[in-house]
Amino acid sequence: MKKFTTRIRARYCETDAAQVIYYGSFMHYFEVGKMEMYRELGIPYRADIPILETYCRYPSPAFFDDLLEIHTWFDDIRSKGFKIRSEVYRVVKEHDLVLVGEGYTTHIYVNEDRVPTLLPDHYVQVFDRIGATREDGKR
Amino acid sequence: MKKFTTRIRARYCETDAAQVIYYGSFMHYFEVGKMEMYRELGIPYRADIPILETYCRYPSPAFFDDLLEIHTWFDDIRSKGFKIRSEVYRVVKEHDLVLVGEGYTTHIYVNEDRVPTLLPDHYVQVFDRIGATREDGKR
Amino acid sequence: MKKFTTRIRARYCETDAAQVIYYGSFMHYFEVGKMEMYRELGIPYRADIPILETYCRYPSPAFFDDLLEIHTWFDDIRSKGFKIRSEVYRVVKEHDLVLVGEGYTTHIYVNEDRVPTLLPDHYVQVFDRIGATREDGKR
Amino acid sequence: MKKFTTRIRARYCETDAAQVIYYGSFMHYFEVGKMEMYRELGIPYRADIPILETYCRYPSPAFFDDLLEIHTWFDDIRSKGFKIRSEVYRVVKEHDLVLVGEGYTTHIYVNEDRVPTLLPDHYVQVFDRIGATREDGKR
Repeated sequence: MKKFTTRIRARYCETDAAQVIYYGSFMHYFEVGKMEMYRELGIPYRADIPILETYCRYPSPAFFDDLLEIHTWFDDIRSKGFKIRSEVYRVVKEHDLVLVGEGYTTHIYVNEDRVPTLLPDHYVQVFDRIGATREDGKR
Repeated sequence: MKKFTTRIRARYCETDAAQVIYYGSFMHYFEVGKMEMYRELGIPYRADIPILETYCRYPSPAFFDDLLEIHTWFDDIRSKGFKIRSEVYRVVKEHDLVLVGEGYTTHIYVNEDRVPTLLPDHYVQVFDRIGATREDGKR
Repeated sequence: MKKFTTRIRARYCETDAAQVIYYGSFMHYFEVGKMEMYRELGIPYRADIPILETYCRYPSPAFFDDLLEIHTWFDDIRSKGFKIRSEVYRVVKEHDLVLVGEGYTTHIYVNEDRVPTLLPDHYVQVFDRIGATREDGKR
Repeated sequence: MKKFTTRIRARYCETDAAQVIYYGSFMHYFEVGKMEMYRELGIPYRADIPILETYCRYPSPAFFDDLLEIHTWFDDIRSKGFKIRSEVYRVVKEHDLVLVGEGYTTHIYVNEDRVPTLLPDHYVQVFDRIGATREDGKR
């Protein structure tokens, strides 16, 4: 699956009293990666769909003012939802990346009664375009 | 002017790499104080009006897990807006309070074109009830 | 396993543009529950140990100014770490709770070289006191 | 005084239930601007000094995914501290900027007893280099 990459700096407001990046800040980094992926794929952010679950693992700490590289890709695509997987690396120097967080958000498309429903067409078209495999067969 | 008081604990997510409470967290404490004041006065939170400016001064640091006491009151009431003033104290022990943040938010009532407009009646009624003095004469 | 309960109000700063509580805010609620559990058990917060992973599921939305009840307990206790499980409920009215978030944080005790190490004694004593079962046998 | 400029995207986690950028997020934007100014001037971030007060005014709302341009400069430089002024603009299109937040943070250098003290040399050297005028005469 095609991966999308973007870079940001770790902000002071994202640190905590252990003098590392607060673990909750990684959800924000995942979002930055997702938005840049959506922008590159031409998916309007207003087409965004609810988050059902979030998971993150922290193999190593990150620090204030670190240059971070975020890798983002679609995974586990089904007719009514998908996962977005993310990895966050510290760029220690060019080509020397240390994994500091990895995880996913699970997205499910729902109608106005919050019943899971088939994904809108613009998602299906994007998945076709990037050659994404559906886990549960074609829509 | 009548002051309203509430207490909370400083959260881990509110700390920063200097191992103190992040200065930006005080805006959140001001909000907690405001909401408790609104609740006590019976002002519906949906009646809340836009914030035009914020100010905070930090005389002394606060720390993770501190018990904090927030004092909140209306000030500088005018026909189209008002300030909400806040003080945040560390409760070192009962009756031993140390000021750690103080400031205000300025609120202006606007119509749908964002033009400043007279405050809605429920504010005026509340100000009358708590004997608040209008800075610019009666409405 | 003994569950610990505390209540807070959802804050304005915790909302997002979907007009619900931002999913990332649940990590903050989990922390509040943990700190109140630690306080009740007499575990000093300085004894806190690193977070290895976080997970949260969102069965239903929560809203600004909701009264939230947080349930917190130890789970999956091992010689070098444990999980803290959390549930967050909206208190619609007394005895009418709606689950809005549930998940866990996984904690691993490490030495200064970040190698996993046996839990400090004050954890073991607390687990004995509350009758917690170790998943991997006695220490 | 020389102004420094940087651009970021408004993040989803920075929105609030009014479907605009939460006013507290502007402190984070000010910090991003400050860090990029420090980087460009070669001031090590570890040389950073405490914040005494913060102020922000919100002339107009900003929105999720807006491209924001931050202008940052030193002001009101004194022997023991200074202000950092910031303006945040929405880039509606290239050369069409709308001011959405402006304000300052006041920084005071203190010794370990928290007594205000002369600024460290690297600040003085930077102020000399960028031709900054001291408000209270030469150090």
